[in-house]
Amino acid sequence: MTEPTFPTKIIRNMPAGRRPPTGRDAKASPVPPEKVRRLNLNESPHPPSPVAVKAMQDAAANVNRYPDPSWHNLASAIADRVGVPVEHVILGNGSDELIVNAGRISLEPGDEMVVPVPSFPGYYKCGAVNGAEMVMVQIRDDASCDVDGIIAAITDKTRLVICATPNNPTGGMLPTAEIEKLVAAVPESAFLLLDEAYYEFAIHAGGDDHLATMQKHKGPWAIFRTFSKAYGLAGIRVGYCIAGSDEVADAFQNVRSVFNVNVVAQAGALAAMSDMDHVKMILDATKTERDRISAGLTELGCAPFPSVGNFIAAKCDRPAADIVADLQGHGILISSLMGAGYENYIRITIGDADDTDALLAALKEVL
Amino acid sequence: MTEPTFPTKIIRNMPAGRRPPTGRDAKASPVPPEKVRRLNLNESPHPPSPVAVKAMQDAAANVNRYPDPSWHNLASAIADRVGVPVEHVILGNGSDELIVNAGRISLEPGDEMVVPVPSFPGYYKCGAVNGAEMVMVQIRDDASCDVDGIIAAITDKTRLVICATPNNPTGGMLPTAEIEKLVAAVPESAFLLLDEAYYEFAIHAGGDDHLATMQKHKGPWAIFRTFSKAYGLAGIRVGYCIAGSDEVADAFQNVRSVFNVNVVAQAGALAAMSDMDHVKMILDATKTERDRISAGLTELGCAPFPSVGNFIAAKCDRPAADIVADLQGHGILISSLMGAGYENYIRITIGDADDTDALLAALKEVL
Repeated sequence: MTEPTFPTKIIRNMPAGRRPPTGRDAKASPVPPEKVRRLNLNESPHPPSPVAVKAMQDAAANVNRYPDPSWHNLASAIADRVGVPVEHVILGNGSDELIVNAGRISLEPGDEMVVPVPSFPGYYKCGAVNGAEMVMVQIRDDASCDVDGIIAAITDKTRLVICATPNNPTGGMLPTAEIEKLVAAVPESAFLLLDEAYYEFAIHAGGDDHLATMQKHKGPWAIFRTFSKAYGLAGIRVGYCIAGSDEVADAFQNVRSVFNVNVVAQAGALAAMSDMDHVKMILDATKTERDRISAGLTELGCAPFPSVGNFIAAKCDRPAADIVADLQGHGILISSLMGAGYENYIRITIGDADDTDALLAALKEVL
Repeated sequence: MTEPTFPTKIIRNMPAGRRPPTGRDAKASPVPPEKVRRLNLNESPHPPSPVAVKAMQDAAANVNRYPDPSWHNLASAIADRVGVPVEHVILGNGSDELIVNAGRISLEPGDEMVVPVPSFPGYYKCGAVNGAEMVMVQIRDDASCDVDGIIAAITDKTRLVICATPNNPTGGMLPTAEIEKLVAAVPESAFLLLDEAYYEFAIHAGGDDHLATMQKHKGPWAIFRTFSKAYGLAGIRVGYCIAGSDEVADAFQNVRSVFNVNVVAQAGALAAMSDMDHVKMILDATKTERDRISAGLTELGCAPFPSVGNFIAAKCDRPAADIVADLQGHGILISSLMGAGYENYIRITIGDADDTDALLAALKEVL
């Protein structure tokens, strides 16, 4: 039998688990989405700043025109705040788009990619879509990425190295000294990507800013951040890349679509940047509820990781899949960690105070 | 000197002309965007339906939650209207995303892709990003794609065949008989993509619906349509793919991001589908102004193509680049056709009546 020509071998061989749901899948969902507490997607329980909502509502009246393909106002605001040239800021339709494109610009089929595990599923999708050999490096017991392990996993075939701080789903962050090790050790033949989707939470928890350290790196690098978490804007899909050089920025520019961030999203993200009090409110409230959930989990005999994110993972004494199912019966959605050795680990997104009350009450019954 | 490892050879060798602008490029733009008539991007001059605007404004208040990853409501509405299974409807962040992914799922580096010229620049980007050999087939004198030429260009290395009806930038559409020829001749070893971004305009002009014909095709196929044109929703980026089979749908599902169409966009497109009177108003107004511009161009000695789209291309007696520049001096942006032999061809997007008045007055001076 001849080999099929469609789709390509890489796409044909992708694991089915990486596939998003279709319209039919959603129809089969057992719980109507409006009746559940969504503590499974690391969303903010708080709407974005009213300033951002107003800007989006105004923008919605003029969507017959294409978005600014250069995201000029938003990219400039980010560049000014971060302190990098505007042409080194690349916006994405969420960091998801940027993560897949990071692979696209750095990986040829068969190249190696070093990636932490457990971590953000988007990394594994990036590897699968681009036909890479994924070299998984288990995270450390303190819930952060294992920089020494990442460095040890690099070979002369490595073309992409991903590190995340704070790491999702475990919540541990890295200090400057660890990023310095990474920057010194990753060879110029690999693209170094630091994912800081939870950057604002790290800074709020007293963590280090890694931009200056990354700027010392000799090879190609980028930092990814997002408006989905601390800004409460997950629904509009805006992530951004701080590219380490013109070469890296050009590569991302080459592969993106011209109008990749929509009119409403650009307006909302820009306006949200002008209301940092609102971001601080979200960060403060997240810490309060995270501390409550952490204490509650400990009281119930679980071992929570020391997370600084808007989520917390914990080791329990029974399979996470069962706990997830039991909580769903209480109208609460949480998630389990993926990867061998993590069968008993759950991850809970930090909701508002009412969510915490309901969660802790349900956990008491379930555990 | 050793070959660089970043970015990959395919990305490194992409033509610079395919690169979207950076924040810096926009800064250097000579004309403030609010002071010009944008007749260069095939946008609707009319805002979308008030029902859609209201739906988007309501949605903007709840964007702290991720979008429905299965686009259930929108995909179901499209599936019902088109008459296909919901799992064969794949939404994209504009058709742009779908077009690049069409290449991703069908092309390996060095594979051949047959594509009309002049046509939508996104096709050439798709080829370049995916490392394909692009085989260009010149359109016919009646402004439509040359199906016989496309068929003749197919080899046993062809993995993707793109045909567009109506074709942008020329505006000609194909009758059923031509699509039948295509469907009969494209081998199962190639993915057949029919781009119907201007579908509603074709139907309004009395053109044929090609779904039933495409459904006779034995190999993998898809039809692309969009909310950017007839629905006046270019700014929110919603395109959709009607996949010819589970296999094609699965391939698109495999490569897309989970949350690729944002909350506001899903709400706006769905609501817009409930107000087809508004779409008809846009289509009627477009025809009226297109006829006026066509007559005006003819009167000024140009030879307009018989377009059915929301744009019209015409051959002039001097270089298009000069006409574009001269009209920009009058605050009117239009575009020129790309490709050898089309140096004297301009393309004008159909605006509102006031735009037509200003355009014809300026053209009289410029030509």
